[in-house]
Amino acid sequence: MKSINLSEKFKKFSDLWSPKIIAEMNDYQFKLVKVVGDFVWHKHEDTDETFIVLCGELTIKFRDRTVTLSKGEMIIVPRGIEHKPTATAECQIMIIEPKGVVNTGNVGGVLTAKNDEWI
Amino acid sequence: MKSINLSEKFKKFSDLWSPKIIAEMNDYQFKLVKVVGDFVWHKHEDTDETFIVLCGELTIKFRDRTVTLSKGEMIIVPRGIEHKPTATAECQIMIIEPKGVVNTGNVGGVLTAKNDEWI
Repeated sequence: MKSINLSEKFKKFSDLWSPKIIAEMNDYQFKLVKVVGDFVWHKHEDTDETFIVLCGELTIKFRDRTVTLSKGEMIIVPRGIEHKPTATAECQIMIIEPKGVVNTGNVGGVLTAKNDEWI
Repeated sequence: MKSINLSEKFKKFSDLWSPKIIAEMNDYQFKLVKVVGDFVWHKHEDTDETFIVLCGELTIKFRDRTVTLSKGEMIIVPRGIEHKPTATAECQIMIIEPKGVVNTGNVGGVLTAKNDEWI
């Protein structure tokens, strides 16, 4: 039962597209991620996924639309929906999703992150 | 798949200690709450509960400690742990918890909020 300061946690890492776990609620995890550039198209067949933008601007491309999120905005990406996060400048986000979800979902590849890095 | 602007959502209500649902992820809900003064001691036997402070300062009393959270800080209150949120000035928070969780947990009382108010 300790408070978690999100800004302080972001100071603890610099690698991109590599989610760091900061908390667990039941079988869900809160992860911080720094992103810039393009991620891969992917989907999570079994779960929705929440993105909250804490700093900067995140664009999420869907096959039928593009949504841009600024600081203080969030979105729930429904299960099974292909999406491709992108950011033109470094952006800090929090992802909330069930424990064990892999960042690249169904596609894998070089951007697939380790899934157990706590900070 | 729409973005949700948290500041805009907070403009839509003014009542205190009355969670408003803004999003669902699987069987979890994101709720915004404005608080000031003292809530009741209570616990949730079956679930952890996440508090994120978006504006102001929130104090959560536990039986063995007190934790104060400022803007940009969060805490996970474990299942079964008695807690009493308080705020000396109005504070805006987001709560994340499974759908159906009642704000007053095991104790009920006059501060028990309706559990189906979407904004």
